[in-house]
Amino acid sequence: MNALWLENNRIDLRDVSQPRKPDEALIKIRKAGICSTDLELVKGYYPYTGILGHEFVGEVVEADDAAWVGQRVVGEINVVCGRCEQCLNGRSTHCENRTVLGIVNRDGTFAEFAQLPTSNLHRVPDSVPDEMAVFTEPLAAALEIQQQVQVKPTDRVLLVGAGRLGQLIAQTLALTGCDLHVVARHAHQQSLLKKREIRVIAEEEIQPWRWDVVVEATGSPGGFALARKAIRPRGTLVMKSTYQGEMSINFSSIVVDEINIIGSRCGPFEPALRLMEARQVDPTVLIVEEFKLQDALKAFERAAETGVLKVLVEIPR
Amino acid sequence: MNALWLENNRIDLRDVSQPRKPDEALIKIRKAGICSTDLELVKGYYPYTGILGHEFVGEVVEADDAAWVGQRVVGEINVVCGRCEQCLNGRSTHCENRTVLGIVNRDGTFAEFAQLPTSNLHRVPDSVPDEMAVFTEPLAAALEIQQQVQVKPTDRVLLVGAGRLGQLIAQTLALTGCDLHVVARHAHQQSLLKKREIRVIAEEEIQPWRWDVVVEATGSPGGFALARKAIRPRGTLVMKSTYQGEMSINFSSIVVDEINIIGSRCGPFEPALRLMEARQVDPTVLIVEEFKLQDALKAFERAAETGVLKVLVEIPR
Repeated sequence: MNALWLENNRIDLRDVSQPRKPDEALIKIRKAGICSTDLELVKGYYPYTGILGHEFVGEVVEADDAAWVGQRVVGEINVVCGRCEQCLNGRSTHCENRTVLGIVNRDGTFAEFAQLPTSNLHRVPDSVPDEMAVFTEPLAAALEIQQQVQVKPTDRVLLVGAGRLGQLIAQTLALTGCDLHVVARHAHQQSLLKKREIRVIAEEEIQPWRWDVVVEATGSPGGFALARKAIRPRGTLVMKSTYQGEMSINFSSIVVDEINIIGSRCGPFEPALRLMEARQVDPTVLIVEEFKLQDALKAFERAAETGVLKVLVEIPR
Repeated sequence: MNALWLENNRIDLRDVSQPRKPDEALIKIRKAGICSTDLELVKGYYPYTGILGHEFVGEVVEADDAAWVGQRVVGEINVVCGRCEQCLNGRSTHCENRTVLGIVNRDGTFAEFAQLPTSNLHRVPDSVPDEMAVFTEPLAAALEIQQQVQVKPTDRVLLVGAGRLGQLIAQTLALTGCDLHVVARHAHQQSLLKKREIRVIAEEEIQPWRWDVVVEATGSPGGFALARKAIRPRGTLVMKSTYQGEMSINFSSIVVDEINIIGSRCGPFEPALRLMEARQVDPTVLIVEEFKLQDALKAFERAAETGVLKVLVEIPR
């Protein structure tokens, strides 16, 4: 089948033959989204060779349980063992033996087909169109913040970064009723937020030492420094991005101010689907362009442009 | 009065005349303890000029409210404004205008007398002797961990470091019933723990990625690295030490493993006094030597020796 292959920091379209995994569903991919992690994998920040892609919506074409066949689905990206200490303690996204769709030892979704265990799949409600469902994975990641931190309606919350993930975080945090302000660098990012009546704040207007919860979603040392400056003593700083290499920080000040730093990654799919079904969030506003699979290289070029939000890849039937 | 004065990384005993602050109690110091922060102040890690010392027990000799006069007391070290955003939100130890006894803009307790507002004072129960009461401040700091983190009886808890503060943390964490293991480098530290049936663990026996809560109390990059290796995904890493300068860490792994890092500083005095009154903890086992105020320089030399726990300074009546 036709697929976007990553090897040695290079992507190309090639014909890949994939052995059929007997315990897994075969999914015909309909749409797949390009995420910052994909761009970082291409840059070689993490070692991975195989088919890229982990944000998708597709249709089950083969499965042991016939009830799945014909269902339109999204899929959790961590394929887990169910037997390790993390799995046995309810932390299966941290499975010690996990493979990760399009990221770690498992071919991804910029391809005609992908395979996943049916236990990873979630049926997409009929009222959620493909271009919305393809955002389930990043929207779930945004919701992970609220799995970890109780964001109270009275909290002053600062979100640093309004890119692909930042926009989804902004939309979900706004639902809590908290006093949310977002640092957004690009005009298009700002305008999407303002359309949802989410307040944008300029860096120089940020009062230091005043914010109950700060979410860092830029992945840059500058973004972290800004978040650190803004957070109040005993406040919670959520780190929602990965960072290149090591970062140098003043831990004494973290101790003196009793700051709580919390790393945040993959989140829950069902509430993400519920919020989209109810139209309480609308990730489709992030879409800037859609390419066919045969133009996936162009799609990646477009996604890598500064300030560009979501680029989708459509896999024709 | 005679006092231990710090200026330009040098301490000496000198006669210091202190203006009487009308709104504060005058306290005759009975005993004061040397803490790692004092040693760091002498090394110049933080800028401070004045009388050193913040761990003390004393007797009120003058106060506006006559009921305090003659009371044996300990005192909270942060003197706060009561009006800033932190004070008004119940975080008075983080007061933005605070002075800190013997640390920030306020003369400390290696002296015949010290002054504090009566709102900072706590009466010492009669059954708690001076040599125990002098540990109230560091014991309260140990208890701050349990103000911030719910340590469950089922938790596997690793404490890295068994020095002055580490010993008190070990004694208080052991009260939770958690599965506590302590990394203690020196034989004397180990033997104190074993006498209380607290388990000591060798570094090479620490299973990585397995501990629910890890407390870092060494203040060294090596201690942090060990703590980071030990903590399980979604675990809580309590940082209970200050660190010299900046520290370089891999934040991506913190995000991927969704680690919770929490800085921890000053804690509550009343529960510390209660635990000592009930003899549920016994900090006096940490005392290695006591010096008179006139030998305070020798006391500091002794306290700076490797593996030495608590050195006290007695101020004769």
